[in-house]
Amino acid sequence: MTGKNATPVTVIGLGSMGTALAEAFIKAGHSTTVWNRTPAKAAPLVAMGARQAEAVEDAVAASPLIITCLTTFDDTRLALRPAAASLHGRALVTLNSGSPDGARQTATWAIGHGARFLAGAVKNVPSAVGAPDTLLYYSGDKTVFDEFEATLKVLGGDTVHLGDDSDLAALYEMAVGAMLLPALVGFFQGAAAVQARGLEVSTMVRFAGKWLDMIKSLLPIYANEIDSGDYTDAASSVNLFLAGAAHDADLTKETNVDTAWLAPLNDLVVRAAQAGHGDHSISALTEVLRKPA
Amino acid sequence: MTGKNATPVTVIGLGSMGTALAEAFIKAGHSTTVWNRTPAKAAPLVAMGARQAEAVEDAVAASPLIITCLTTFDDTRLALRPAAASLHGRALVTLNSGSPDGARQTATWAIGHGARFLAGAVKNVPSAVGAPDTLLYYSGDKTVFDEFEATLKVLGGDTVHLGDDSDLAALYEMAVGAMLLPALVGFFQGAAAVQARGLEVSTMVRFAGKWLDMIKSLLPIYANEIDSGDYTDAASSVNLFLAGAAHDADLTKETNVDTAWLAPLNDLVVRAAQAGHGDHSISALTEVLRKPA
Ligand SMILES: NC(=O)c1ccc[n+]([C@@H]2O[C@H](COP(=O)([O-])OP(=O)(O)OC[C@H]3O[C@@H](n4cnc5c(N)ncnc54)[C@H](OP(=O)(O)O)[C@@H]3O)[C@@H](O)[C@H]2O)c1
Ligand SMILES: NC(=O)c1ccc[n+]([C@@H]2O[C@H](COP(=O)([O-])OP(=O)(O)OC[C@H]3O[C@@H](n4cnc5c(N)ncnc54)[C@H](OP(=O)(O)O)[C@@H]3O)[C@@H](O)[C@H]2O)c1
Repeated sequence: MTGKNATPVTVIGLGSMGTALAEAFIKAGHSTTVWNRTPAKAAPLVAMGARQAEAVEDAVAASPLIITCLTTFDDTRLALRPAAASLHGRALVTLNSGSPDGARQTATWAIGHGARFLAGAVKNVPSAVGAPDTLLYYSGDKTVFDEFEATLKVLGGDTVHLGDDSDLAALYEMAVGAMLLPALVGFFQGAAAVQARGLEVSTMVRFAGKWLDMIKSLLPIYANEIDSGDYTDAASSVNLFLAGAAHDADLTKETNVDTAWLAPLNDLVVRAAQAGHGDHSISALTEVLRKPA
Repeated sequence: MTGKNATPVTVIGLGSMGTALAEAFIKAGHSTTVWNRTPAKAAPLVAMGARQAEAVEDAVAASPLIITCLTTFDDTRLALRPAAASLHGRALVTLNSGSPDGARQTATWAIGHGARFLAGAVKNVPSAVGAPDTLLYYSGDKTVFDEFEATLKVLGGDTVHLGDDSDLAALYEMAVGAMLLPALVGFFQGAAAVQARGLEVSTMVRFAGKWLDMIKSLLPIYANEIDSGDYTDAASSVNLFLAGAAHDADLTKETNVDTAWLAPLNDLVVRAAQAGHGDHSISALTEVLRKPA
């Protein structure tokens, strides 16, 4: 459904991500209403053909499908409060990051006002919105997902419904997202080390990319080990990482890079070894990450 | 060169990785001599056709090309000491992990005994040895690389010489490798969170894989930002990560996963914001990782 028959859509929250979402709908021919707390941010979208609502109530009343992209779930409920009465019978889809608990609270609030609720997450950067392989996952009211699936696919071709519980998208987003900052800081540390030697960081990009491919190829193996609780078939053992930890100090000394952030990571490796996992797969670290109940 | 004309090769150190290296040479038809401190580990290779040397001197004397794969550079020099006199005129190629300084020390030691020296690194797991896209990089004596390139390619099709300085492979291995443990612990943390909810970790593998693809696509952008020192075009800002840091406490509360290891990472984000990088790209963290000279 594009052009005249396309579902009218409202996008609330026009930061980097919300703007990308609204743009994708406009480009796909959806009649798009936008609202932002700071109204000036809507100008480029209006220039592209969006209709700017003055009040959030008007924005909600304009479409059967409301997409929000604010910083947090708390911000989302706060911004929508004046429009609560207009939510009745409409589909509300959140696309912010946040905790599973925040998703549940927002579901309860929205459903309490008669909305049909879906909580989603964009696992990518704004510039990837609309690409065929961009992943967005949703959880909550499956009838909303089924009814608006074609419209939601405008935002990314890899669109998944994880389950009826409204907090699953937030749970997976957190779980999957937990790799981001650590992996990036690892890259930045490597970058600082290469630079300290007078070399361009761009020279390590190809190697780092292959390294990420390698890590990706290990994930199904580690997932099986964790699911089965059997860590004994160890291609890369806890002890191997224990030996590697000693290099951090060398790196600091030689390249003047601050590796202090790695201390608690190495400490997890030590604790895993102490717990008897020395010869086990590095995935046994999962066991020491679980707090005693 | 395979079969009868293939260069005879010696592999010293038959742990997980050394065994994989020796296997690859045997399969490619190289006359392969092996030695390990604990001799019993050579048995499977002997069954495949390797010749086992009783003394490390004999192992070194058996081939023009000696590959070592011991735990550290110190272990490598220690194990080779009795064979030092036999190194003269031979090519010694190390394939262990270690610090740039360790590589330099080993180069000095080996060259002092008349060896031609190349220090390499396998950026992969043992099971990937021999695959066409497996990356091995080397640095040091380029004449060794040129003379034995075809033989070294038996270990992995993506074989690169980084430069004449013997420590470059170790530097890049450390720099690139700095992503591994942090990324894996991020995955394990996500795994523990998904499990705490009663779900299989395998259900998040596809999503985590796409996430790594996304991270990979960002690396050239971040490398350019770091090389240019211009962090102002921020698709994902330091402040965005600052907002995300607040979720860690939620995750702990909801899933009983220990997120304490993230505290120093979040602290780097805070320090970057305090240093005026709040609206800058997250790659500006590189600036706070550099210790004041
Ligand atoms: N950018 C990314 O790379 C990315 C990727 C994946 C997911 N996300 C998620 O998407 C969400 C939005 O991110 P973003 O990058 O678009 O952030 P952003 O550029 O900082 O924009 C935040 C938006 O939320 C609005 N907002 C915040 N608090 C509000 C409140 N109390 N009342 C009304 N409006 C409020 C802001 O309005 P004002 O303009 O008035 O301040 C702005 O429209 C976040 O949860 C983020 O984690 C972002
Ligand atoms: N496995 C991987 O996934 C992987 C990936 C990339 C790089 N690497 C690197 O490859 C190197 C070897 O790793 P690995 O997995 O093969 O380790 P490993 O299975 O623990 O084997 C270590 C090898 O080093 C020998 N060794 C250690 N200290 C020695 C000494 N002082 N004298 C004589 N021999 C000594 C051991 O002999 P014994 O059998 O007598 O103990 C064994 O052959 C390490 O630097 C590692 O970081 C490994």
